[in-house]
Amino acid sequence: MSLNKNIAVAGATGAVGIEILNCLDQRDVPASQIKLLASARSAGKELDYRGEKLVVEELTTDSFDGVDIALFSAGGSISKAFAQSAVDAGAVVVDNSSAFRMDENVPLVVPEVNPEAVADHQGIIANPNCTTIITLMGLNPMQKAFGGVKQIIASSYQAVSGSGAAGLTELEGQVKASVHGEEAPEKQVYLHPIAFNVIPHVDVFLENGYTKEEMKMHHEGAKILGISDLRASVTCVRVPVYRSHSIAVTAVFNDKPTVAAARAAIGAAPGVYLADEPFADTPVYPTPLDSTNQDDCIVGRIREDIVLDNALTFWVVGDQVRKGAALNAVQIAELL
Amino acid sequence: MSLNKNIAVAGATGAVGIEILNCLDQRDVPASQIKLLASARSAGKELDYRGEKLVVEELTTDSFDGVDIALFSAGGSISKAFAQSAVDAGAVVVDNSSAFRMDENVPLVVPEVNPEAVADHQGIIANPNCTTIITLMGLNPMQKAFGGVKQIIASSYQAVSGSGAAGLTELEGQVKASVHGEEAPEKQVYLHPIAFNVIPHVDVFLENGYTKEEMKMHHEGAKILGISDLRASVTCVRVPVYRSHSIAVTAVFNDKPTVAAARAAIGAAPGVYLADEPFADTPVYPTPLDSTNQDDCIVGRIREDIVLDNALTFWVVGDQVRKGAALNAVQIAELL
Repeated sequence: MSLNKNIAVAGATGAVGIEILNCLDQRDVPASQIKLLASARSAGKELDYRGEKLVVEELTTDSFDGVDIALFSAGGSISKAFAQSAVDAGAVVVDNSSAFRMDENVPLVVPEVNPEAVADHQGIIANPNCTTIITLMGLNPMQKAFGGVKQIIASSYQAVSGSGAAGLTELEGQVKASVHGEEAPEKQVYLHPIAFNVIPHVDVFLENGYTKEEMKMHHEGAKILGISDLRASVTCVRVPVYRSHSIAVTAVFNDKPTVAAARAAIGAAPGVYLADEPFADTPVYPTPLDSTNQDDCIVGRIREDIVLDNALTFWVVGDQVRKGAALNAVQIAELL
Repeated sequence: MSLNKNIAVAGATGAVGIEILNCLDQRDVPASQIKLLASARSAGKELDYRGEKLVVEELTTDSFDGVDIALFSAGGSISKAFAQSAVDAGAVVVDNSSAFRMDENVPLVVPEVNPEAVADHQGIIANPNCTTIITLMGLNPMQKAFGGVKQIIASSYQAVSGSGAAGLTELEGQVKASVHGEEAPEKQVYLHPIAFNVIPHVDVFLENGYTKEEMKMHHEGAKILGISDLRASVTCVRVPVYRSHSIAVTAVFNDKPTVAAARAAIGAAPGVYLADEPFADTPVYPTPLDSTNQDDCIVGRIREDIVLDNALTFWVVGDQVRKGAALNAVQIAELL
């Protein structure tokens, strides 16, 4: 950003909102004012920012006077209710919810993948789904190297942070109860225990038997990459990990890929790095703990797929709260 | 079994050995004698069996006099060292290790899938890899309904019990340390923390970048199903779950599959049942906790794949210690 901007964070007290504040700080985003907005229930809370205490204000339709950029991360219904007020007040909205992602007038942006799309905004820019962002951070350098991607088959290992602070609390509560031999607290977030379990159910079920979360890679991936006939079949699974998502990806490219060229492409790409030495004395590959609290996504386990032609199978991990949400939104703000 | 047999369990004090003893008991296998064998270190230990205390004896080449069936679950090197002694003494060996699985003179058997193969044994019958067994329990009824399976793309969510008792101890120790705010015990089994993490590394890496575990579905699946050109691309991942494996499977069949016919096939098959109601008020699908300590595997999330032709994507869970190892071995013994 060349000039200092007034930035509002709507949903400031949520897990992603707090991380947005961290990202604004750590990246030295030159904001002249930071306005924290949340529900009436959270109004009056104080959050630390560069040594100051910022007071959270109630989010209303009048919250956006003088705001240049409004970062929304309070869920789809809040975005639908208040984003237009922000636009009407002259702000550009960067929305972290799924409310506007597939709107043809709304750019859907991963800054390392399609930064040019930001220019087409009409007041709102959407931040993609976290699993889609992290998958594309690994996939995009490869698909550019191999003439584009046609098909994706993927399974996710998604952290509980994807369900917000309540997801973290639920896992922690169940684990503590298990260790202390106590009954687990009543479930609030997931239909099944998440401690010592995995749950193949993220977001609601759609008519075709996939969940809404699973279809996001299909729809959002096509839009972000600009490949309208991209097809993606995903199984999204919640796992007892706190913050980082992992995705096992099989991708079919237009050209014949090689492992060496894929590694070189990842090595040269911004925002992602390679951890892929299966034949080292101690084999190297990324786990979700490795990317926790990191900006960068990490790729490993790249191999020529032995079933599909022109395909690679690989593994990518990324911090869901950071690159999967807050960081990506702040990077979009930086592009403005 | 029509007549009472003398049964030996080699590796009796391991996680699978103890479960074999449970299965022999619970299934009322009519054994006239049960002989427990283990390393010198474990000799003298006592294990409960139908109200009796059985004393563990040291496994030697002379252990098998009078034994009819020897169930081995002490790892590949023990099987290689002692299985022939058992055969020479007149026993039939049911081996749970990978030592003989791909030997063309050794049947590789999932009793619900290819029981007829048992008849061809020359003294040794192999129990397949746990992830392969559980996947095939879901896949076989479908592939029979749809003219055979050609291709599998799968990702696993494998419990720590797959690493034996040490895997259970490692997860438990790390979780306890985390709750108590203590440093975790030194890692013995996995290269990375398994608590609150997932690890895309099961067994050793092979030249093609897949692990040995991942290639088992490819090789063993083809042998068990009798489909020599079956191809399987698998990513095997260890997750912080104690006992049950889960697998997300995309399978390409020769004929066009339907969800309804797949559900009917699972519903009619032995050893596996359906939990697949995505549109119920409370959606129904299986999690690994649901199959823990259960004989049956459970299938859900069946849907027409939106990427590959003639394909379904589904989710299957099964108790790794039980159907993935001990139960399957005891079922093979019952076929004898």
